[in-house]
Amino acid sequence: MRRFAADRARRAVAASLRGTAASSSRSAAPSPLAPAPRHPASPVGAAAMAAAMARVMSTAAAGTPAVSLDTINPKVLKCEYAVRGEIVTHAQNLQQELQKNPDSLPFDEILYCNIGNPQSLGQQPVTYFREVLSLCDHPALLDKSETHALYSSDAIDRAWQILDKIPGRATGAYSHSQGIKGLRDEIAAGIAARDGFHASGDNIFLTDGASPAVHMMMQLLIRSEKDGILCPIPQYPLYSASIALHGGSLVCSLTTLLCYSLLHVESDQSHLNLQFSEILHVPYFLDEETGWGLEVDELKKQLEEARSKGITVRALVVINPGNPTGQVLAEENQKKIVEFCKNEGLVLLADEVYQENIYVEDKQFHSFKKIARSLGYTDDDLPLVSFQSVSKGYYGECGKRGGYMEITGFSPEVREQIYKVASVNLCSNVSGQILASLVMNPPKAGDESFESFMVERDGILSSLARRAKALEEAFNSLEGITCNKAEGAMYLFPRLHLPQKAIGAAQAAGTAPDAYYAKRLLEATGIVVVPGSGFGQVPGTWHIRCTILPQEDKIPAIISRFKEFHEKFMDEFRD
Amino acid sequence: MRRFAADRARRAVAASLRGTAASSSRSAAPSPLAPAPRHPASPVGAAAMAAAMARVMSTAAAGTPAVSLDTINPKVLKCEYAVRGEIVTHAQNLQQELQKNPDSLPFDEILYCNIGNPQSLGQQPVTYFREVLSLCDHPALLDKSETHALYSSDAIDRAWQILDKIPGRATGAYSHSQGIKGLRDEIAAGIAARDGFHASGDNIFLTDGASPAVHMMMQLLIRSEKDGILCPIPQYPLYSASIALHGGSLVCSLTTLLCYSLLHVESDQSHLNLQFSEILHVPYFLDEETGWGLEVDELKKQLEEARSKGITVRALVVINPGNPTGQVLAEENQKKIVEFCKNEGLVLLADEVYQENIYVEDKQFHSFKKIARSLGYTDDDLPLVSFQSVSKGYYGECGKRGGYMEITGFSPEVREQIYKVASVNLCSNVSGQILASLVMNPPKAGDESFESFMVERDGILSSLARRAKALEEAFNSLEGITCNKAEGAMYLFPRLHLPQKAIGAAQAAGTAPDAYYAKRLLEATGIVVVPGSGFGQVPGTWHIRCTILPQEDKIPAIISRFKEFHEKFMDEFRD
Repeated sequence: MRRFAADRARRAVAASLRGTAASSSRSAAPSPLAPAPRHPASPVGAAAMAAAMARVMSTAAAGTPAVSLDTINPKVLKCEYAVRGEIVTHAQNLQQELQKNPDSLPFDEILYCNIGNPQSLGQQPVTYFREVLSLCDHPALLDKSETHALYSSDAIDRAWQILDKIPGRATGAYSHSQGIKGLRDEIAAGIAARDGFHASGDNIFLTDGASPAVHMMMQLLIRSEKDGILCPIPQYPLYSASIALHGGSLVCSLTTLLCYSLLHVESDQSHLNLQFSEILHVPYFLDEETGWGLEVDELKKQLEEARSKGITVRALVVINPGNPTGQVLAEENQKKIVEFCKNEGLVLLADEVYQENIYVEDKQFHSFKKIARSLGYTDDDLPLVSFQSVSKGYYGECGKRGGYMEITGFSPEVREQIYKVASVNLCSNVSGQILASLVMNPPKAGDESFESFMVERDGILSSLARRAKALEEAFNSLEGITCNKAEGAMYLFPRLHLPQKAIGAAQAAGTAPDAYYAKRLLEATGIVVVPGSGFGQVPGTWHIRCTILPQEDKIPAIISRFKEFHEKFMDEFRD
Repeated sequence: MRRFAADRARRAVAASLRGTAASSSRSAAPSPLAPAPRHPASPVGAAAMAAAMARVMSTAAAGTPAVSLDTINPKVLKCEYAVRGEIVTHAQNLQQELQKNPDSLPFDEILYCNIGNPQSLGQQPVTYFREVLSLCDHPALLDKSETHALYSSDAIDRAWQILDKIPGRATGAYSHSQGIKGLRDEIAAGIAARDGFHASGDNIFLTDGASPAVHMMMQLLIRSEKDGILCPIPQYPLYSASIALHGGSLVCSLTTLLCYSLLHVESDQSHLNLQFSEILHVPYFLDEETGWGLEVDELKKQLEEARSKGITVRALVVINPGNPTGQVLAEENQKKIVEFCKNEGLVLLADEVYQENIYVEDKQFHSFKKIARSLGYTDDDLPLVSFQSVSKGYYGECGKRGGYMEITGFSPEVREQIYKVASVNLCSNVSGQILASLVMNPPKAGDESFESFMVERDGILSSLARRAKALEEAFNSLEGITCNKAEGAMYLFPRLHLPQKAIGAAQAAGTAPDAYYAKRLLEATGIVVVPGSGFGQVPGTWHIRCTILPQEDKIPAIISRFKEFHEKFMDEFRD
């Protein structure tokens, strides 16, 4: 059914691009960018439009469904999000099968290594954070003496402080659309302490996780398919999905076209043809050979190529530490990126949600704002957005949907437009707002909870570092797999050097080779990973993204299940 | 500054409509709908595009801002949201003034009657709900004996039940993108008990309040400015804002054009001209004379008019109980609406967030799904979406951002597309999900908390009914004000029969007369209301929307402040 629907979706997009429906995204003059032989321009004038409308009206009258794949917004059809895509649906089905009949499969649980969702795999929440949230959810507790038997005294103090920042102490009221002012100020103080440069609560927009903040910026910047966003390849597919939903588009070179087509898990010939005409962003390639380094020369090349095709590139997305690649950018590299954005007039969209996830001694997190300020650049020099989330770090509170963006370098008029978009959704959830303020201002030395907090925090981070290392070594020990070091974030992105026979088998099954591998892995072991084609990769290379999040006591078993599967797979397909 | 920004925003939209930027929303052939003399079609071919691009590139190189009102998405510029608009910003500034210098203004507090935000005005949260949330936020409490001293035993039981529905009891994990399955099933059971017809958890999408659900449906349905959504006038401006953001548009008759222009608070001549060309929806007028009745003849008229202009009308929005008008639709009326949608092939978008806010004996809430099923219509007959929120009802938990939509009558392929859009944002916040399950399945007779719960619930609802009545009577007692009964929801929408002299003064000040009145009211009394022009109204009529939410003990003082202001205003302007 899902496969069928995906096929229908593709046909519907293809049809809409061929102009069988009145579409807003066409000009009657053929665009210099459209590959003419594939999509001959057809006049969409008054007559054609009236005919299309008449057709739609008669359809409605005839009682066919009011909404079908042929009549929904084609931008929705185009959008893909592999992290929760086909492989995950398959895993959910297997899980249901396991529940019904525990002996039906060669494993007894599904291990979701597809998504950075630490608590789903057993990571415990930080006690102090949850104490404060629990008290703020039920402030009546603060007046009762019995509360001291259940909560640490600094959590009680903190809950009071937070309530005092909320007008009327009303945790159930809509807040200011940017978030509660006192909490924003606290976050700004946390940023200033981290960076050593001034930050203002007026520049903070609290959001339900980082994703809505990313959508808000895409909505602001993208006017049409002639606007491009420079994205890394491989990239976290939130960016390509958001750009698709907001109608951004286009691309430059055949290499990039090929690269983009590989973003899609299923790629039969018609699908590839389709992708050629609807490239959604301006990707730049991270260099696997240098540990997924970000080369500014590569950025320039892609930017110039895009501009020569008439694309207005609006912004550069940088994910640091990297997702799915786990690299931590060097300070020198970051400086070059800032200079590049300044010189080229690009908005720098800095995804910094993994800022606390660094596992190597020789690397440190530097925010792009700190880098820009240390270069002497002010608000007047470049617009910069930093995204942060309560879902990552050592806290991993994905279900709480807390996060913020710090925006600097935008004019008051443009900020007001961002505020307006935020206000249409009223505000982000107040518990998430509170949690965002806690992660940016955790317990300090001398607080009652400080020691136990540090034990929990360091326990999680050091365990993540050990898990990253163990998995990386395991991948590198296997025939035909090479894996860069996870310096940060929550993922490994090993490269699969697949035998030609395996590639042939994948083609025969109508899937990309890495999607084929991931499906076989799931069916043999219950381990869910995301095929590299969901993130993009250099043409002809194949990867999987695997989180480092299963609990540490399970890692040895996972490694041995993985090894066993991989050896069998290679035995089956070795050329 | 704000005024200045609004002017600049208008000029930027006007410029983009005149075609000074390469825009996706133009076809080279003049549209039959565009008022040609105002917007002469200009060829947007390859050469023009290349020139535009070269301009943008040279601009960037010259170091002008990368983002300005002239270069952001014009859909963002077009969107307006009066509920948090100019008057509220003015109120926030006055509040800051009051904090600095408490004697500087003729009142000592700002009373926010602009928005349905009960807890901001002192309404207390329902204890049982907050107990459960507090326990779920810190599940470690459930293992401690001291917890029984602080929480009711059924709240503890309920927290256990909820945790058992969450995979791994992980309240900090991303959930299924539709929301936690067990909670959706519980909500479905609540819907079935309410309606007497089957409901399925598979049809529930849990969302961060109702707004993101509305956006999701608009995103799905609107392909271009040729797609229209049939909206009530007056309407809650979330709908017009969401349609604008998603690029829907267009309109039919001069009446409607005029009506739409009045949706905008500020309306100098250039602004009106602008609005003429970018009407964002297909409004239908509620009939004030019959207590804001919804006439199906009016719906048909607007639908046919829209279709004759080439608009594909995709859906009908009905808000019941009404916002801002407070009417509760009669069952017979609802039946006709369902028949209308079925016959015309429209999606019925039913905003039912005020389903528990009914203040009159002779009216009852009936969901549109119940009406459709009682007419014998099934999933095959019409697509229907019901929006519900934890922000309204007696619970008023706006800050928790919980809500859901129940979708029925969509094909599996289309549902999958809705799921995909939901999955790009991962999931809604888990506390909001839990709260949504609680409001749809509150304590039952026999539960320990039942009696105290009912006292809180009925106390809030009966107080709201008394407040609605007191304010309605007060409005109707004043010269030049008539006010329909608030049968439900949280608002009164009194009509201001303003003297000609007052209208002249408003024109001289460059604002709509109701906006002028609201501003004067705020400056004299600290009471914040929204001008009717923020919701739309029949041309030549003027209204304000005022919530019934100030606490009951404050109502007499509010009424006397309001009366005093109004009498002085009439003395100043009486013709």
